[in-house]
Amino acid sequence: MNSQRRGNLKVGAPTRIYDPLFSTPAMTEVLSAETFVRNMLLFERALSAALEERKVIPNGTAQAIAALSVDDFDLAVLAAAARSAGNLCIPFVKMLTAEVARSNSEAAGYVHWGATSQDVIDTATMLQVRAAITLLEEDMEATCDALASLIRIHQNTVMSGRTWLQQGPPVTLGLKLATLLDALDRHRDRLQHLMQHAIVLQLGGAVGTLAALGRNGPAVAENLGRLLNLPVPAIPWHTQRDRIGEIAATLGILVGTLGKFGRDTSLLMQTEVGEFMEPSAPGRGGSSTMPHKRNPIFSAVILAASTRVPGLVGTLLSAMVQEHERGLGGWHAEWETLIDILRLTGGALAATREIVCGAEIYPAAMQCDMALLGGVTMAEALSFRLAQKVGKGEAHRIAESASRRAVREGINMRDALLQEPAVAQYFAAEDFNAMLNPDNYLGASNEFIERVLANHSARSVEVHHATR
Amino acid sequence: MNSQRRGNLKVGAPTRIYDPLFSTPAMTEVLSAETFVRNMLLFERALSAALEERKVIPNGTAQAIAALSVDDFDLAVLAAAARSAGNLCIPFVKMLTAEVARSNSEAAGYVHWGATSQDVIDTATMLQVRAAITLLEEDMEATCDALASLIRIHQNTVMSGRTWLQQGPPVTLGLKLATLLDALDRHRDRLQHLMQHAIVLQLGGAVGTLAALGRNGPAVAENLGRLLNLPVPAIPWHTQRDRIGEIAATLGILVGTLGKFGRDTSLLMQTEVGEFMEPSAPGRGGSSTMPHKRNPIFSAVILAASTRVPGLVGTLLSAMVQEHERGLGGWHAEWETLIDILRLTGGALAATREIVCGAEIYPAAMQCDMALLGGVTMAEALSFRLAQKVGKGEAHRIAESASRRAVREGINMRDALLQEPAVAQYFAAEDFNAMLNPDNYLGASNEFIERVLANHSARSVEVHHATR
Amino acid sequence: MNSQRRGNLKVGAPTRIYDPLFSTPAMTEVLSAETFVRNMLLFERALSAALEERKVIPNGTAQAIAALSVDDFDLAVLAAAARSAGNLCIPFVKMLTAEVARSNSEAAGYVHWGATSQDVIDTATMLQVRAAITLLEEDMEATCDALASLIRIHQNTVMSGRTWLQQGPPVTLGLKLATLLDALDRHRDRLQHLMQHAIVLQLGGAVGTLAALGRNGPAVAENLGRLLNLPVPAIPWHTQRDRIGEIAATLGILVGTLGKFGRDTSLLMQTEVGEFMEPSAPGRGGSSTMPHKRNPIFSAVILAASTRVPGLVGTLLSAMVQEHERGLGGWHAEWETLIDILRLTGGALAATREIVCGAEIYPAAMQCDMALLGGVTMAEALSFRLAQKVGKGEAHRIAESASRRAVREGINMRDALLQEPAVAQYFAAEDFNAMLNPDNYLGASNEFIERVLANHSARSVEVHHATR
Amino acid sequence: MNSQRRGNLKVGAPTRIYDPLFSTPAMTEVLSAETFVRNMLLFERALSAALEERKVIPNGTAQAIAALSVDDFDLAVLAAAARSAGNLCIPFVKMLTAEVARSNSEAAGYVHWGATSQDVIDTATMLQVRAAITLLEEDMEATCDALASLIRIHQNTVMSGRTWLQQGPPVTLGLKLATLLDALDRHRDRLQHLMQHAIVLQLGGAVGTLAALGRNGPAVAENLGRLLNLPVPAIPWHTQRDRIGEIAATLGILVGTLGKFGRDTSLLMQTEVGEFMEPSAPGRGGSSTMPHKRNPIFSAVILAASTRVPGLVGTLLSAMVQEHERGLGGWHAEWETLIDILRLTGGALAATREIVCGAEIYPAAMQCDMALLGGVTMAEALSFRLAQKVGKGEAHRIAESASRRAVREGINMRDALLQEPAVAQYFAAEDFNAMLNPDNYLGASNEFIERVLANHSARSVEVHHATR
Repeated sequence: MNSQRRGNLKVGAPTRIYDPLFSTPAMTEVLSAETFVRNMLLFERALSAALEERKVIPNGTAQAIAALSVDDFDLAVLAAAARSAGNLCIPFVKMLTAEVARSNSEAAGYVHWGATSQDVIDTATMLQVRAAITLLEEDMEATCDALASLIRIHQNTVMSGRTWLQQGPPVTLGLKLATLLDALDRHRDRLQHLMQHAIVLQLGGAVGTLAALGRNGPAVAENLGRLLNLPVPAIPWHTQRDRIGEIAATLGILVGTLGKFGRDTSLLMQTEVGEFMEPSAPGRGGSSTMPHKRNPIFSAVILAASTRVPGLVGTLLSAMVQEHERGLGGWHAEWETLIDILRLTGGALAATREIVCGAEIYPAAMQCDMALLGGVTMAEALSFRLAQKVGKGEAHRIAESASRRAVREGINMRDALLQEPAVAQYFAAEDFNAMLNPDNYLGASNEFIERVLANHSARSVEVHHATR
Repeated sequence: MNSQRRGNLKVGAPTRIYDPLFSTPAMTEVLSAETFVRNMLLFERALSAALEERKVIPNGTAQAIAALSVDDFDLAVLAAAARSAGNLCIPFVKMLTAEVARSNSEAAGYVHWGATSQDVIDTATMLQVRAAITLLEEDMEATCDALASLIRIHQNTVMSGRTWLQQGPPVTLGLKLATLLDALDRHRDRLQHLMQHAIVLQLGGAVGTLAALGRNGPAVAENLGRLLNLPVPAIPWHTQRDRIGEIAATLGILVGTLGKFGRDTSLLMQTEVGEFMEPSAPGRGGSSTMPHKRNPIFSAVILAASTRVPGLVGTLLSAMVQEHERGLGGWHAEWETLIDILRLTGGALAATREIVCGAEIYPAAMQCDMALLGGVTMAEALSFRLAQKVGKGEAHRIAESASRRAVREGINMRDALLQEPAVAQYFAAEDFNAMLNPDNYLGASNEFIERVLANHSARSVEVHHATR
Repeated sequence: MNSQRRGNLKVGAPTRIYDPLFSTPAMTEVLSAETFVRNMLLFERALSAALEERKVIPNGTAQAIAALSVDDFDLAVLAAAARSAGNLCIPFVKMLTAEVARSNSEAAGYVHWGATSQDVIDTATMLQVRAAITLLEEDMEATCDALASLIRIHQNTVMSGRTWLQQGPPVTLGLKLATLLDALDRHRDRLQHLMQHAIVLQLGGAVGTLAALGRNGPAVAENLGRLLNLPVPAIPWHTQRDRIGEIAATLGILVGTLGKFGRDTSLLMQTEVGEFMEPSAPGRGGSSTMPHKRNPIFSAVILAASTRVPGLVGTLLSAMVQEHERGLGGWHAEWETLIDILRLTGGALAATREIVCGAEIYPAAMQCDMALLGGVTMAEALSFRLAQKVGKGEAHRIAESASRRAVREGINMRDALLQEPAVAQYFAAEDFNAMLNPDNYLGASNEFIERVLANHSARSVEVHHATR
Repeated sequence: MNSQRRGNLKVGAPTRIYDPLFSTPAMTEVLSAETFVRNMLLFERALSAALEERKVIPNGTAQAIAALSVDDFDLAVLAAAARSAGNLCIPFVKMLTAEVARSNSEAAGYVHWGATSQDVIDTATMLQVRAAITLLEEDMEATCDALASLIRIHQNTVMSGRTWLQQGPPVTLGLKLATLLDALDRHRDRLQHLMQHAIVLQLGGAVGTLAALGRNGPAVAENLGRLLNLPVPAIPWHTQRDRIGEIAATLGILVGTLGKFGRDTSLLMQTEVGEFMEPSAPGRGGSSTMPHKRNPIFSAVILAASTRVPGLVGTLLSAMVQEHERGLGGWHAEWETLIDILRLTGGALAATREIVCGAEIYPAAMQCDMALLGGVTMAEALSFRLAQKVGKGEAHRIAESASRRAVREGINMRDALLQEPAVAQYFAAEDFNAMLNPDNYLGASNEFIERVLANHSARSVEVHHATR
């Protein structure tokens, strides 16, 4: 870094103080102001090259730009100039032109030829989004694969199902995690879809006609797209922001799924539950006043993201209402908001990966918690078993009565059942052992798990083939 | 309607007082409480049929349910009972059981066998969403087809491009509308994708294991899915709400696109602009105090939706954080919010269709507005033409200088240019006529339009084939 | 109700199917379409009376309007006509004029004289808001008073403090509830402030000049304000919506506070915790598949509101951007959104009141849960006591070491401490009993409680005086 | 700045690249990471001083802390450590303790005595909020005073009123701006209210009991509050976040008002309108491709803020649902969100001030635009005048008929009226001149303006007295 060129070094720094907490180093880098300026530079270089290929401008400009790097731009000056210009591109192009002029004054006259600020900013943003999603995809793959292993290991680890935060019939940890894997693999499809459909070139000129390029517009766009490896859309989209909205929303939905996992993890980590814990590490999650604490730091990071991202997605949807051929305010509202969504998604996903890859699992605590109600949570199981003898209504009545007796008298369900007159005639005490065993009341859990794992494997094979 | 059974008739009415303004009659019907109850009834009937097919329960229940209709349920009582139950399904199942018992007391014992409230509510919601999106798709198709015709007609209708609400170089109305058609056809792909991927059966029982059905769970789900024509997902998704989030977000993005069109329409309808008007009709858009007014009613409906839907989408993303096997509050937050999103989307789309199908277009006003600045908006065109002789920098300087002179002295651009010394040596006065003619500065507009129309046609053919 | 006039009775019904669950009957009534129309009628009657008092129009119109009631208006027709008019007031005034004409054709000519639709709708809304907040204030008072009693009773009921969902040092239930009472009394101040400052008359005519009333405008507004008991603002506020924003935001903050209580209640009700429970009642919170369940229904209602209201508040803030003298879309976006905020706030507050007034409290469970970690949560207390002998750093080290040993070896804190060499020289085993007793580590809890209760009492006295 | 201690200088930089565009230098400084760390340092120093005053700890710590400055903390290390700790305070206290230990190892043992991380972070945030609101209040005062002058100057500058973006009866620029001044002075009351009620000390220790301070807690808090000049609340408020919600919401409402002004300004700046312009300056608002453009940069900044802030406010309301004695995720979601709200509010207000202080006003354009419809917008005025002769209904009919004729035949209103038979018998052609003169149809505009200015003056006097 050429720190001389950075002025006071306060502007344009790539990280904010909360970046390490709420995001990842790689994501922070990709979303930094430096990367953004670098992307604008890539655009201008490729634009010049495309124009030169099509003989719209003389050779030389692309080469002159290629000699420059982000360090040739004083981000503090750039930032300050944006106040008068209304965006970063206008002062950037001025600075770029001046830099090119230092080596080739004629070439300087052809910098940014035919393009408008929004072409540069939107395309630079798209390059940033693509790099960010690539990072997300890597974390998604690692998370999903680790999850698949964990599911296989805990396919038969029985724990209490919980509805409305109340214990219900049993599930397995494998099943619980399989619903997550199932959702995450859907999210991978969504991210892949974004990569294929939502990330495109922007090149339209002042009002989306490419008029400044005369008849050459589409051909130049074609070359530019090839050079930047970005698909060229049918028509410029300066004020049609559905792709931006789709990127934001897709990440928003992903963060919602992660938030659910963060919430569950933190609930399972409660002192009174202690069934499934974030990985511990020296110093992590300690409390300044409570030395014994083990705070769910990763869950907090995920939950902070899932609290923040919905409002940010809403903002980008609101911002879609952009006027005529170039919006006023709406476009400006996108810039930092989209960065924040990507940044927080990256952090939440990394935290999820940490949990999944290092989770500490306590089957004994699961057993213990399940025993808390003395089998009352098996009421449904009993109800269905009893129903085969006494009909659904009567079975439900008995299960309910026994449950209440068990809760009221603090006895276990087996004993409570034995006190029900209607039961005694059909069942012996020992019959209840099997009936009250959670392992016997897991329904199709394994079948569901197998389907999810099979889908996951098929997906992996397919991706593997596709990327070979 | 059996009004005797509806109590005071105030509860569960299918419409709200603003429904006709903000939605459509068909959408209102589809989203009504009656339809929801009807869908719950469909679920229970199909569940019983599926259970009977699999011999899980004796024959009879499905037939008994089939004899009932929504009119057999007192919606006021249902609504009131939801307060104690926490959802509509619990009292519905009680009422249903009682109704079935009147005709077949044994069958009543098998109503809702093995299912949980959320199975019923989620599936009934999915049926509602499917019907609502079907309505949207119809309106989308009609809107897009009308738009395609309008684009063809106005392919060469030149008007001012506008950036930052300031006039810029010219566009055509065809181009302006083509960006909308392009976006709307993408939205149609998104809706189609929702229909194929996001709308699925929910059947998991109490905690997503289908334990109450023993080994029969998956087979019953298969049959149920077939009967309701809903795909069966790999695993129940009680607290994995990404599909709900995707439905909401997809509609939210669509409404953003519509909002952009509503804003543009209202701007073009301004007294000072008057280029593109909503269809007029006797009594529509009148003002109680301003008899001459022609208010952009449809734009207001669209803009109201685009102001409201982003927050509602944010809510559904927030609501995704649902605990363990059944959420507390998050699930409840979905119900009315999803309905409102569908309802407002329907209204905004119908208003868009009205505008597109009946727009009044004033090319003379477009010409007149373009003339306001005496050709200053052609500065870019000139700049690029001049650049061919004097280089980009000098050309830009001349164009800027002449523009300022034209604005300052209130003269037109042609005369201002003639006063620029550098210009006189290269151009004669008559050269400027062609240069300043907006028709000559439309760049690739027609090529872009053709691509969009070609995509639209290909899409229509494909859909046509698919639905044959 | 004159059902003949209501058409098919489906439109404008005062309740939605979820009203009983998510709101209250009184709030539903206040927010109904009937009440809104009634308020519009009140406005028009009072306007005519004010105009007559000032001799702007001849006597007769007010009297003719006074003879009408909401039942004279077919809400279905009104709703349908709103589609063409863009709001409810235009067709309402037409219908009103026709009704008045039936009894007094001359008077009909003076209906709505000098006012604009927005005057009527905004003022009718303000009357609705005032009535709704009055209901909230009643529930707030009852809730706060009940809370004060509960705090007094449980001032010394010790329970585990919990941070990051992990047990920490002890608090009392009284303290926990006192933070809620403190916040709720602040909210009462905020509601009172709204009542005094945000709820005002709207009367500005077409563009806020009252030009149609010539010189009489302000005097008429004064009389109208008196008749409706609404303060007259300095200037009409058609597109200055900060009061609406303030109403929405104030309720949004209140719902946030309630949401926190709902979350805590549901967490304390968890099967594994069971310390503080929503009141039980026959049939409430039952599950269709889990007969033993006791679902936190009230918490779910509160949490649903706290999930939904933030987005709705955001919508109203977005909607503040209204154009010139009358907004397009922004104003329309307010109508249902504000109603929903009031409606959900009413429901969440009523649910809170139910919990506070009927909470079941289990001190034994609190003791039991506190014992789970064998005193490890008293580490901080020990740390500070030890520090008096060995300095803060060393004390912290010992407490941390003992905590870890206790957790690792599954022994209690007392025994773990005795194994710390540094401890033995300063303390005897019996010294730890007092140190590890949570009752001895409550700090200023009681002082804080007393302050909150004193503020609450002072507030009550003041309100009592103010309302005498 | 001690750059050696800043590591790679990338972390914790006080500005982001968009700060100059979307905020102000003063606000950026106040909201910087440096200021935050400085505030944490102030807290710890004052805490030690308060503890020393009360003899809870020995003298020395406060003095040792006083010798340190923010430059002694490596923000990059701090930021990185936050990832393990979950917040900035834990590593900050560690670093602070180490720094103090370098000068006074005993004193190091008493750093942060009895406090918890949240005490430090919440209080440091409150100091930041106070400084930020102080900046806002200064800008508000200057803006309002400039507005008052502008209103006085343009009290009689007649322009078209506009409703639904359609021209209506006339207003004055003074009236239009008076509604803004009226709203802004209300916002000043709200900000003042925040300063008095919402900005308070946080000191509660681990779970809000201050147990670590034994009996001394409240006295220490009293002293600490005095030292930091912050009111001490009745009870700690770790998870009662209504004050944070109120701060956010109050700013959100303010931004809504500013957004309305930004929208209006940009609409009035349209090429086709040109009545009221942002101040021009060399280079400001230029376009890279459209040299003649004068983009509404300030309006864009304001509108970007009004698009973003509502979602951020919603986030803070969502984040209020914080668990038990310390929240998980909700608290974390506040940090950057609150900063962003303050930052964007500061930028939007500064932009508003720029517009108000430098607006270019074109009364001739206002006259010209008003003439566009040939007097049709005076239809209401005519209607009321005619009504005095022919009754309201007939007058309305005539005005409507003449308006339509004028629009249809492209003639002016005066001529259209003369063709109405009913009119000829009551009025002569010359009567219409006065009737159609907008200056004669301004109603109570001046009275409203005078009231607003009087309130503004009274407010200024009061503030002046209060601050003497």
